Amino acid sequence: MAALYDVAAIGNAIVDVIAPADDDFLAREGLAKGAMTLIDEPRAHVLYERMAQAVETSGGSAANTIAGVASLGARAHYIGKVAEDPLGEIFAHDIRAIGANYETAPLTGGPATARCLINVTPDGERTMCTYLGASVRLEPADVIEDDIANAEILYLEGYLFDPPKARAAFARAAAIARGAGRKIALSLSDAFVVERHRADLLAFIDAEVDILLANEVEAMALFGARSLGTILDAVSGRVAIAAVTRSAEGSIILADGEMIVIDAARALRLVDTTGAGDQYAAGFLVGLAHRRPLAECGALGSLAAAEVIDHFGPRPQRPLAELAMEQGLI
Amino acid sequence: MAALYDVAAIGNAIVDVIAPADDDFLAREGLAKGAMTLIDEPRAHVLYERMAQAVETSGGSAANTIAGVASLGARAHYIGKVAEDPLGEIFAHDIRAIGANYETAPLTGGPATARCLINVTPDGERTMCTYLGASVRLEPADVIEDDIANAEILYLEGYLFDPPKARAAFARAAAIARGAGRKIALSLSDAFVVERHRADLLAFIDAEVDILLANEVEAMALFGARSLGTILDAVSGRVAIAAVTRSAEGSIILADGEMIVIDAARALRLVDTTGAGDQYAAGFLVGLAHRRPLAECGALGSLAAAEVIDHFGPRPQRPLAELAMEQGLI
Repeated sequence: MAALYDVAAIGNAIVDVIAPADDDFLAREGLAKGAMTLIDEPRAHVLYERMAQAVETSGGSAANTIAGVASLGARAHYIGKVAEDPLGEIFAHDIRAIGANYETAPLTGGPATARCLINVTPDGERTMCTYLGASVRLEPADVIEDDIANAEILYLEGYLFDPPKARAAFARAAAIARGAGRKIALSLSDAFVVERHRADLLAFIDAEVDILLANEVEAMALFGARSLGTILDAVSGRVAIAAVTRSAEGSIILADGEMIVIDAARALRLVDTTGAGDQYAAGFLVGLAHRRPLAECGALGSLAAAEVIDHFGPRPQRPLAELAMEQGLI
Repeated sequence: MAALYDVAAIGNAIVDVIAPADDDFLAREGLAKGAMTLIDEPRAHVLYERMAQAVETSGGSAANTIAGVASLGARAHYIGKVAEDPLGEIFAHDIRAIGANYETAPLTGGPATARCLINVTPDGERTMCTYLGASVRLEPADVIEDDIANAEILYLEGYLFDPPKARAAFARAAAIARGAGRKIALSLSDAFVVERHRADLLAFIDAEVDILLANEVEAMALFGARSLGTILDAVSGRVAIAAVTRSAEGSIILADGEMIVIDAARALRLVDTTGAGDQYAAGFLVGLAHRRPLAECGALGSLAAAEVIDHFGPRPQRPLAELAMEQGLI
């Protein structure tokens, strides 16, 4: 059956609050640099009080990827829960404005829209503290069967392994996609997510996942590998395709027992790495949905990641389809 | 009496919603490119619906200037009205986080925090539509006598000439500053503001203003001048100091019947001109408060303006004091 969407994704619907910070600030607040820490609402207020002047922008890992997919001109659908509040309106506006389909009913009478407090150090590295709020109220009923069955690729973010209801929604979506003969892609999201759920993640990957996306720290944590060289063996037979991002070193794609090395694309400058992995996933998945060779999928990923690191915020500011056309990639 | 603040400012407290747009979008929406148009709440909702994926950031002309003043390491105080809502919290957080003093009580039970919908075209020009909301509920009682009397310079934005209560607050602040022997600076804000209130603005300038800030379009509109060359005559005898900004051409400073030409500082790239005039005002006023020669005041203004146009958003992202020190300006 012809697909209605190239990619459908499920994730935590989050608004980002992004501010510059220095390493001393991270130390004083006890924050693990580069990681994502879950925080409760009182802690979110205290931390926000102490943060510098910020910029607010729609975020959420899979939502950022879906924004990138839409920006590349592909057909994108998103499922995630916001509250019926001003930040929820901002989230819904932005993902629709970039061209994605988004219909999940907002939560009423519960916690507020999720926020991710992101402190960006001068090296461009982002350290995230997330108050999950309404996003964890996503439940299986929010996963509409037709939407999943009609997408070439179902994309799931590893962050959804934390909240139990969301994990149930995740399992339901995977079953629908599997039943419809679609591909299932998973992002590991964060090394601490891998540590918290390693056995469950491996079981889910073995049972359901065709395409695995991770950065090298997450991939090594998942497979207990000491070096990148041993990951190829670990991946073989587990998933058909794995893409492992390596920041400025580019990425590697593992498939059919082979390793393809992809260069990073040059960014105008390095301002904020927030969303780089999400945008790599966008380019890579659009390439796969369009049946492009793996090296071109990786190049599309690199192009999308390079666009997003030269400004504050996790989503593309320039239409990725135009950039990809300029570079002959689509 | 020694001053507690270098600059105290009164303005419309606004949160900016910034999105890219093309010229066709402006034409379809009937928007005058580069201008600020006042809109009501229903129109704000419709326009927001049609805008692209946006970024939210604290704004407001005089508030941006105060953020720049604080970023330059000078002592800054701000007076402006937000509502007790999430956007109001963002505004209050950001202006305090950058180091300014801000104590105006938020409005309860009235309209929401003001929003400025800003469409940025590929040439970096910004076209603004403002829903004034709670900001126009600023009233004379919000102007605390001690704060104004203790600031070297009182800075007023021309936008406050639109709402009657705010204009009354404006007049009260000017009277306090005058009584305390302080300097009064005025920004013309917008050519349409000048057209709407030309006679009142001229009367206010003659009676109260020591320092006038304007771009060349606003200055020519105010004085009915056909060219920049005739503005010097028009200004002489009216205000002691006038600074007229000219975008990429830099600025001119008019004082004591002379004209000083100031070059624009080079920006890394031109992304979004929102806040360029506000930041020029910040540098210029800090220079004046610190009794620097006028050419150095202008150079500080150019430096601050160059920082803000290379990214989306109207406030500095890098500490201006560091940039000014690198360039030997402070």
